[in-house]
Amino acid sequence: MPKPDPSVEQSAAQKNPRILLDGHGGDGAPDVVLDALKQILASSSCKAKFGVCGLVEVLEPALATRGLTSQVELVPASEVIAMDDSPALAVRRKKQSSIHVAARAVRDGDWDALVSAGNTGALMAISKLILKTLPGIDRPALASMIPAADGGTFFLDIGANIDCSSEHLVQLAVMGSCYLQAAEGMESPRVGLLNVGSEEGKGTDVVKAAAPILKASNLNFIGNVEGTDLFSDRVDVVVCDGFVGNIALKTMEGVAKLMLDTIKRELTSSLTAKAGALLSRKALKRVKSALHPSEHNGAPLLGLNGIVVKSHGGADVRGYACAIEVAIREVEADLIARTIESMNAMVEASS
Amino acid sequence: MPKPDPSVEQSAAQKNPRILLDGHGGDGAPDVVLDALKQILASSSCKAKFGVCGLVEVLEPALATRGLTSQVELVPASEVIAMDDSPALAVRRKKQSSIHVAARAVRDGDWDALVSAGNTGALMAISKLILKTLPGIDRPALASMIPAADGGTFFLDIGANIDCSSEHLVQLAVMGSCYLQAAEGMESPRVGLLNVGSEEGKGTDVVKAAAPILKASNLNFIGNVEGTDLFSDRVDVVVCDGFVGNIALKTMEGVAKLMLDTIKRELTSSLTAKAGALLSRKALKRVKSALHPSEHNGAPLLGLNGIVVKSHGGADVRGYACAIEVAIREVEADLIARTIESMNAMVEASS
Repeated sequence: MPKPDPSVEQSAAQKNPRILLDGHGGDGAPDVVLDALKQILASSSCKAKFGVCGLVEVLEPALATRGLTSQVELVPASEVIAMDDSPALAVRRKKQSSIHVAARAVRDGDWDALVSAGNTGALMAISKLILKTLPGIDRPALASMIPAADGGTFFLDIGANIDCSSEHLVQLAVMGSCYLQAAEGMESPRVGLLNVGSEEGKGTDVVKAAAPILKASNLNFIGNVEGTDLFSDRVDVVVCDGFVGNIALKTMEGVAKLMLDTIKRELTSSLTAKAGALLSRKALKRVKSALHPSEHNGAPLLGLNGIVVKSHGGADVRGYACAIEVAIREVEADLIARTIESMNAMVEASS
Repeated sequence: MPKPDPSVEQSAAQKNPRILLDGHGGDGAPDVVLDALKQILASSSCKAKFGVCGLVEVLEPALATRGLTSQVELVPASEVIAMDDSPALAVRRKKQSSIHVAARAVRDGDWDALVSAGNTGALMAISKLILKTLPGIDRPALASMIPAADGGTFFLDIGANIDCSSEHLVQLAVMGSCYLQAAEGMESPRVGLLNVGSEEGKGTDVVKAAAPILKASNLNFIGNVEGTDLFSDRVDVVVCDGFVGNIALKTMEGVAKLMLDTIKRELTSSLTAKAGALLSRKALKRVKSALHPSEHNGAPLLGLNGIVVKSHGGADVRGYACAIEVAIREVEADLIARTIESMNAMVEASS
């Protein structure tokens, strides 16, 4: 993916993003959430204002311990959605949950974005109910920017929509393309359809039926792409259903972890190797920082009329901080307004 | 995966495998095929006998150039299946192709195994037609041993069956489990169903319906596993349909390549890093050899009454040699007879 358009960065400077964090959900809440927030607040360049939403009795002392009470607004909520709660029940029966309260605060304009490491299904369902989807979009999608030879590939859906029709795949392509136009200032992102081969006629019936619709659209559709292409410089947006996308993403995380573990083990296997590793430690650190899953945490929920970012439930402090940074960038880029513009332009061009 | 049972290695020593290579198909045939064969023949420990099947006018001079004429039997075939031939047409209209001739030679007992880098669909269809599937198996599957924390995970289907019913997923689990029992001497391989979460009730309808059948079987079914688990030590066999499997496998290859390229680039980025890399070059070589896709080439076609190994079409010499080694190990382990034994034992135990 080429460098972002500088005009996007300019408009970015004009906003002071107000980011509301879900104080619950994920393996390490609220500690991971607040430690990540403290790390971000320590950076003098951070202009964002932060809030944390959830149980006062839990969050008040956790903020105090970290000396964050005066810097971070506590938005009270009286319920917590558990990671194994059924999304459907969570939507209906826990209307005072931290996710509900935070989503309403974003809808009402009190905050610009919501970040949560909580129950993915519940976050999707509540966000859809409260924030609504953008015109032309049936279901919100979960996306991730994954590392690639040219910086990154925008990959969706990564688990929000287990079953997708051909029309849903096309909507994913529109959402992904408009996201890169809005957030990165790309003019015409190259869109690929994830498949088992580059030739036409490959794949499942749903995928085969999506290709001609994409071809006829005014998206910059480059055809089928394969798993290897995700990390190449030939495509900017890759779409697939959430079952395939979730498995591909976790496969990627698994390989990266295995490789980093292998490197660590081998580089401590002998004195000579250790000495070598010491000399090349800066280079190895860059490898780790380029490819470690934590560095790519923060999945935007797309297609909603509001900014929501999902952090991995198992994210560490560095990972959660990345998710907060994704939310800040989206607000700075005025993502929703730009996405709507971009979608309107697409509809106009095709009519 | 634990170490193989030594009794398997003992029986292994009793056979001199006869391996027939498809002289065509893949990006680099016949050069890659014959260069890989030459590399293997150069090893004094190799007891296998080799043949190469295909067009005499192409293969005779290619063998002569490499000084292999006396060591390698040339099995003539008068047709070649192109990589983009329709498998259905290739099966019916190219009955004198190298794949047809080689599969018949394996069926007739003249050779013990066939290795091909050719058109996957055609190889599957012709192998099924000529060698037939084992009792209880509807369709052959393509599998791969992928690197994991404990040595390897056996992963299938990786592209032979794009659409799978729940029953097909169960057959894949049987094939994978019996393969590890037969080829590696494992007593009770742990089988996992690839899914988007470990909880029951996750995933597509097909996957959800497969879980209770696997649970009721006498396989050692451990439940749903995720993409990250592929590389862990908690599962030995992972099953999914060929669409998901192919994408996961190519994603894995893509990440591994990106990481190795990044390491290479970073370690040559400064003099200090270069010096460090020089000192740790042995350790880094082991990282590469543990994780480079070439080292894991050679996908067994399972469920057939005969040994067939598919090499990646784009395999290099080292990769193709790995595929030959997979075939040798399968013959040495007496794979087909042992698989039938293992399947019979499973049927008996469940009746």
